[in-house]
Amino acid sequence: MTLFVLDTRLEADTFRIGESALNLLLLMNDSRYPWCILVPKQAGLREIYELSTKDQSTLLIESSLLAKTMMTTFMQEKMNIGALGNVVSQLHIHHVGRRQNDPAWPAPVWGHSQATPYSSDNRKQNVQALSQSSLADHFTF
Amino acid sequence: MTLFVLDTRLEADTFRIGESALNLLLLMNDSRYPWCILVPKQAGLREIYELSTKDQSTLLIESSLLAKTMMTTFMQEKMNIGALGNVVSQLHIHHVGRRQNDPAWPAPVWGHSQATPYSSDNRKQNVQALSQSSLADHFTF
Repeated sequence: MTLFVLDTRLEADTFRIGESALNLLLLMNDSRYPWCILVPKQAGLREIYELSTKDQSTLLIESSLLAKTMMTTFMQEKMNIGALGNVVSQLHIHHVGRRQNDPAWPAPVWGHSQATPYSSDNRKQNVQALSQSSLADHFTF
Repeated sequence: MTLFVLDTRLEADTFRIGESALNLLLLMNDSRYPWCILVPKQAGLREIYELSTKDQSTLLIESSLLAKTMMTTFMQEKMNIGALGNVVSQLHIHHVGRRQNDPAWPAPVWGHSQATPYSSDNRKQNVQALSQSSLADHFTF
């Protein structure tokens, strides 16, 4: 059995902020959007349908909880949820909060323009907001 | 109760090729990629988490079946699955088969470049392939 290792590009572009039994919860280091990523901790996955039925169900529950929490916590207008993997093939599911006045609107954020890294304070503030939400029922922060 | 009506832009850009109890199954009129869209037939939806837990679960089952079927039927290398809704806010979930030699690779297809409409024969061929797959267990074509 191959051990799960987070893809090096995801490791470089994000902060690990939480973990459930199934998923890593990452925060993309781009302060322009609230942008979280779920990564199932299983080696060799590329597509959602490769997860067991039970794990797909858990992924959906955690994805919907994350999307709803991000929408309300960060007062967003629309969530963009996507599993693409054209650049990083390791299965990972983006959750991006969008507003009509954000830099990429209405285009997708992927590949749109260079990230604006977080200041340490801003990042801590966002992580704290998530860790004090109902996400804490599913994720350890 | 408001009746479900398919968004006019989705209506214009796609063909209705199938239907389950929960979803419409649309084929995007862009012959450059196998590109299907699931639209839950409920008025006023914008986010996946607004569906009931049971309907979310059904959506996932049908999404995974669709993705797996498209991957094998059309011999794709990667599936891109996304719920964006920045332009058309009615909840709809894209399923796009991708190859390294397709026009947009590795960028997302959304907003990349103008569609190449299907010829009638090509469209019928693709719809027939889908209707003869295990999708027929969930969808009426």
